[in-house]
Amino acid sequence: HLELQQWESSSKTFFSKSKCVKPKVNLDLQKDNPKVVHAFDIEDLGDEAVYCRCWRSKKFPYCDGAHAKHNQETGDNVGPLIIKRKEA
Amino acid sequence: HLELQQWESSSKTFFSKSKCVKPKVNLDLQKDNPKVVHAFDIEDLGDEAVYCRCWRSKKFPYCDGAHAKHNQETGDNVGPLIIKRKEA
Repeated sequence: HLELQQWESSSKTFFSKSKCVKPKVNLDLQKDNPKVVHAFDIEDLGDEAVYCRCWRSKKFPYCDGAHAKHNQETGDNVGPLIIKRKEA
Repeated sequence: HLELQQWESSSKTFFSKSKCVKPKVNLDLQKDNPKVVHAFDIEDLGDEAVYCRCWRSKKFPYCDGAHAKHNQETGDNVGPLIIKRKEA
């Protein structure tokens, strides 16, 4: 059972009450960039902008609805940030 | 080696090239809310708003810099969204 003990020992690094200890949030986007920050000027916004916070959008930094599939597949509850003009 | 084989088999559900298959993005925030969406009116924004996209901020939906610790601990590269007035 030596092999099994090694497996169990190393698995403690990965498992917790959730599936993993401290997982990444962004799995794929701009992995050559050490910190993905976006900045926009208020004056340049249209009537409504919907920004991705799940990091799964193909239109990142904008939302494409990918959070729905992500939430369904993982049991997560993330959603976008909406910046809009009143009465727009 | 039956036990080991069972471990290896079940571990395939969890492991991938990264630490886990399809981890959650939001580990703790508003878990009674099935989809955490925020909406703000442009007219109500000040000179600058910095919005959290790592879901680790104690000031969520605003950034408190928690992405720095998250990135360091996990090897991730997430950062906030900044909405600002020109020349602010």
